[in-house]
Amino acid sequence: MNFCSDNAAPVCPEIMEAMLAANTGSALAYGEDAWTQRLDAVFSAYFDAPVRAFAVVTGTAANALALASVTPSYGAVFTHEQAHVLRDECGAPELFTGGAQLRGLSGTDGKLTAVVLEAALKANPPSVHSTKPAAISISQATEAGTCYRPHEVAQLSAFAHQNGMHMHVDGARLANAIAFLDCHPAEITWRAGVDVLSFGATKNGALAAEAVVFFDQGLAEDFELRCKRAGHLISKSRYVSSQLLAYMESGVWLRSARRANALAISIAAHAQPWLMYPVEANQIFLALGTERRQRLHDLGFEFYDWGAADSGEARFVVSWNQSQSDIDALAVALDDLCGN
Amino acid sequence: MNFCSDNAAPVCPEIMEAMLAANTGSALAYGEDAWTQRLDAVFSAYFDAPVRAFAVVTGTAANALALASVTPSYGAVFTHEQAHVLRDECGAPELFTGGAQLRGLSGTDGKLTAVVLEAALKANPPSVHSTKPAAISISQATEAGTCYRPHEVAQLSAFAHQNGMHMHVDGARLANAIAFLDCHPAEITWRAGVDVLSFGATKNGALAAEAVVFFDQGLAEDFELRCKRAGHLISKSRYVSSQLLAYMESGVWLRSARRANALAISIAAHAQPWLMYPVEANQIFLALGTERRQRLHDLGFEFYDWGAADSGEARFVVSWNQSQSDIDALAVALDDLCGN
Amino acid sequence: MNFCSDNAAPVCPEIMEAMLAANTGSALAYGEDAWTQRLDAVFSAYFDAPVRAFAVVTGTAANALALASVTPSYGAVFTHEQAHVLRDECGAPELFTGGAQLRGLSGTDGKLTAVVLEAALKANPPSVHSTKPAAISISQATEAGTCYRPHEVAQLSAFAHQNGMHMHVDGARLANAIAFLDCHPAEITWRAGVDVLSFGATKNGALAAEAVVFFDQGLAEDFELRCKRAGHLISKSRYVSSQLLAYMESGVWLRSARRANALAISIAAHAQPWLMYPVEANQIFLALGTERRQRLHDLGFEFYDWGAADSGEARFVVSWNQSQSDIDALAVALDDLCGN
Amino acid sequence: MNFCSDNAAPVCPEIMEAMLAANTGSALAYGEDAWTQRLDAVFSAYFDAPVRAFAVVTGTAANALALASVTPSYGAVFTHEQAHVLRDECGAPELFTGGAQLRGLSGTDGKLTAVVLEAALKANPPSVHSTKPAAISISQATEAGTCYRPHEVAQLSAFAHQNGMHMHVDGARLANAIAFLDCHPAEITWRAGVDVLSFGATKNGALAAEAVVFFDQGLAEDFELRCKRAGHLISKSRYVSSQLLAYMESGVWLRSARRANALAISIAAHAQPWLMYPVEANQIFLALGTERRQRLHDLGFEFYDWGAADSGEARFVVSWNQSQSDIDALAVALDDLCGN
Repeated sequence: MNFCSDNAAPVCPEIMEAMLAANTGSALAYGEDAWTQRLDAVFSAYFDAPVRAFAVVTGTAANALALASVTPSYGAVFTHEQAHVLRDECGAPELFTGGAQLRGLSGTDGKLTAVVLEAALKANPPSVHSTKPAAISISQATEAGTCYRPHEVAQLSAFAHQNGMHMHVDGARLANAIAFLDCHPAEITWRAGVDVLSFGATKNGALAAEAVVFFDQGLAEDFELRCKRAGHLISKSRYVSSQLLAYMESGVWLRSARRANALAISIAAHAQPWLMYPVEANQIFLALGTERRQRLHDLGFEFYDWGAADSGEARFVVSWNQSQSDIDALAVALDDLCGN
Repeated sequence: MNFCSDNAAPVCPEIMEAMLAANTGSALAYGEDAWTQRLDAVFSAYFDAPVRAFAVVTGTAANALALASVTPSYGAVFTHEQAHVLRDECGAPELFTGGAQLRGLSGTDGKLTAVVLEAALKANPPSVHSTKPAAISISQATEAGTCYRPHEVAQLSAFAHQNGMHMHVDGARLANAIAFLDCHPAEITWRAGVDVLSFGATKNGALAAEAVVFFDQGLAEDFELRCKRAGHLISKSRYVSSQLLAYMESGVWLRSARRANALAISIAAHAQPWLMYPVEANQIFLALGTERRQRLHDLGFEFYDWGAADSGEARFVVSWNQSQSDIDALAVALDDLCGN
Repeated sequence: MNFCSDNAAPVCPEIMEAMLAANTGSALAYGEDAWTQRLDAVFSAYFDAPVRAFAVVTGTAANALALASVTPSYGAVFTHEQAHVLRDECGAPELFTGGAQLRGLSGTDGKLTAVVLEAALKANPPSVHSTKPAAISISQATEAGTCYRPHEVAQLSAFAHQNGMHMHVDGARLANAIAFLDCHPAEITWRAGVDVLSFGATKNGALAAEAVVFFDQGLAEDFELRCKRAGHLISKSRYVSSQLLAYMESGVWLRSARRANALAISIAAHAQPWLMYPVEANQIFLALGTERRQRLHDLGFEFYDWGAADSGEARFVVSWNQSQSDIDALAVALDDLCGN
Repeated sequence: MNFCSDNAAPVCPEIMEAMLAANTGSALAYGEDAWTQRLDAVFSAYFDAPVRAFAVVTGTAANALALASVTPSYGAVFTHEQAHVLRDECGAPELFTGGAQLRGLSGTDGKLTAVVLEAALKANPPSVHSTKPAAISISQATEAGTCYRPHEVAQLSAFAHQNGMHMHVDGARLANAIAFLDCHPAEITWRAGVDVLSFGATKNGALAAEAVVFFDQGLAEDFELRCKRAGHLISKSRYVSSQLLAYMESGVWLRSARRANALAISIAAHAQPWLMYPVEANQIFLALGTERRQRLHDLGFEFYDWGAADSGEARFVVSWNQSQSDIDALAVALDDLCGN
């Protein structure tokens, strides 16, 4: 009963079959293959807007490369203090941007707000002594497992643009957000002012496939050079691009996200006393206390302790292939904890 | 009546005369001159310990180069959220370290504590996903104009070393701290566990002279290459080194710092209602409110508004050559504000 | 009839089956899976020595990350002027090393020699003004399709170590070199003094799998942090590690390399007048002249024109799955060119 | 009798007096002082064109910061294989550009030509695999002590612009070149297509003062942030700017350069058999052979051996304050060598 991470799950059949189908004959390398050549068109159809899209193999690469195209080395990127780009990528954005500064801000339920951003800018107004405000980066769904509503994204984008900044979204779990919000992908991206997106597929069933999607196509200039220079221009590119095509074209992206969300939300009902945040995607954060947390571990549930070792907090992630029996067992165990 | 910055002051006579005295005949360039060759010995005598010392021309260079010798590119440097290295150097530490991450922590009166550091480490324990704790950097005097006591520095150093980190001090106003603490320079540096120091002289009367001082001499390996690579190996090095020698050997460092401190502290007595922090060096931070602040501006006092534009806060810095009449005038004006 | 690149070939059955076999159930992410946990042991057996091995997905990443562990940012890496790291990686080594300098040197048949290296060091002796000699990097097989003999590698390694440098090998086509030299993998690596190796599998039948192998295990410190920071710590790591395991354990690495080499060498016999270098692996470089080259293009052979557009040079690469009929057709075409 | 370097000379009176004159009263820091505020106007008058000019303290900083404003991190800068930026700055351009690649090309008398550049571009045409051609950088005077004629600079600039590159000049000894060419400063800079210039004063009599001069003012955007981030925004900026103002406004720049050139050229007449390059500025390179070279050392002449230790080559640099007696003694000694 593994709730550690959606990265612990295997590859979904739709995607594995597409990779196998691609495994025949010669194909030009480094993005000149027929699969990669279709990416722009398929992503443009997906988002209902003309975009440039580039395949990479990790979310960290997608985020760091995307940020490198929206900030100079002397720039500042505003993000939530819990953001993956700030806390969980070992400084990849700093490496790829040439040393730009990520500034973590606080915010309820893992969300940035224009109010907090404005205060940060006022408290440390741009000058020759400080890094230049260059971008806002949010996660959708957030690190707290919540989802920005379209108007929330739009407010942040507006603030970014008013202040000469670009708007980036880390969409490692974008599908889960779209599934929860029940909206068109366009609604929470370009229609809400987003300039560049890290589009995640790996956590939702791909083998290793993410994309950097530019709604502001001018930002995509020389992006392939950035990828190559980072070792992220895959030689046999067909095997990455074919994953992305299958992910979108088969509809599995939405089916899997809907299922995982539904299972997670069904768990939330059994964990009301301990919910740290609303459950709006496939992650559940519980402030169980160390004793109850240990009891779940003892029952054979695998999940990550969260925060400080003695925080008593826990994170459960529901994967695309999580079994209903895992969910049922967890529900029972939580009910038992409640009863005590 | 200029209280804007100690950088607004001119060069003190002792130092200017030393530069003029150095201005005769040929001297080998790039640190091979007789003045630079004496730096290690004179700094070792000053600190009563064998050290390696390297002259540079800005505090930003000293800090960023010092940090580059104590953190790998994938390292984290813990510092106060108000620290100069974090807020006021436009990302120089990020540039020179190759993208290390500065993590700003809160703390009363501009000071870090081991308690706050320990909580930060526990909340975000080292893993492959996060930058590696590599150093602690404090400012002495702090950005709040306060001074760490020797035992406070020692506690931080101990915490650093226990956790595999190095201890750095930004001593842009080190002389003011020593003057206030009335201690030997060794007491707040190597005897308190400091590994590397940015030794400031410019704010206290030099033209452009700072030094990076290594108490842990092993860290100094290849430091000249770091300087050269940063454009900070001055060709006519005698003109920088001679400033530092005169600064220490003439005793002007302590005379000037004592005087500036005394004047600042004398002002504090007239500003009790608005003092944001204890006045322990040559800086005074006042929460005047916007109206009172404006009144002082109208009276011809030059100083920087602090924080957000509407914060009502102000910073006054007393320079080595501040006139007694400036001080008297400010005291009177503050008394008047109090009376209202 | 595609001779463009060994990257144009599909994935070989042994490796694809291993990936499919890995695609079941949960597995810890980020290298904690059972496949990745076996890498050190399997690579140690392969090389008959204790090594640390880390899987990545591109040769550029392997090279740049390997070089980052053997040079400081102010270091110099000596390499052949035709080296992939210098010419074909868009500055990836510069990015990952923090700006180290690659110095390209000339050498017959794509090979560096100690004589050329010694002359380079003497002509530009180390000083505070120049980047510090840190490493030698050679390609095995070379960019010219030739192979260093074990004693040639050993001479370079000895020179490196005598001068305080590390020895790196870009083994994008290591299997082809081993097949040609008919030696044990140890002979041209650690027994010849190599410190760190970029071990290639992709060009020889993998999907996207390379490894950085440390013979000097001390150099591997924090290497996972370097990978993560570069976006090269793959989340579903089992799918990369399983490729490498199958590649080595099935023996396909040697079978495929032997076959490709043999086919390439069989072609060489038909191209004697135009051979630019001895054919010792799976690449053939021909100085055909623009007319003959065009004739081959017209006949339907796909290959890359080499060097300047009007050079008349061509590169043919034989892939692991190249058909005998492709080879036969090329032989006939070359014989025809000869006859004219 | 020191001919080691023009950096071994002291500061000329005109400049030292200007610094002393600046040393009175308060002045805003970080470039807000009255001296720095005049830089743009005085440089614009000097070059007879509207320019932006920024003061720094080393030539390495000037070059590396200038290059950082004309190349992305994934760019390539073409320069002469003997160029200071490539060989003598310990990788500073790589650091400040974020890892751009300097490509050294050969050329007679220390000069690049469009022919050589064109061949280099053709041999390694731009692609996703190689760094993007971004700039040409030449030294004026060159590292060989020769001077580009205006039409030679113009040809290189035209080639740069035709290929989407910028044109940079390292003018560490620009005054010597202008003195030799007897032209207006505009002739070999913006009228010849130069975009950005490293303007040197230190070697010609300043204490530590160089400038980055932008003829293409659009390139100057955020340049102060680059300086700050590199630790090169001097706090007491008046002391650097006053040097530059005095250097230009007193005319000492041209007087000193003319004198040094004339002395160097007078020496050349006594060294005809060994001249490695035409003497067109204040440097003389002689292929003396190791014996003759040693004889000069034994006679008390201080100068640098050049190239490899056993090259037998020597460099003599004439400083602004070189005595006529030094010159006379050297002439006699060379005549004696000739006679043998």
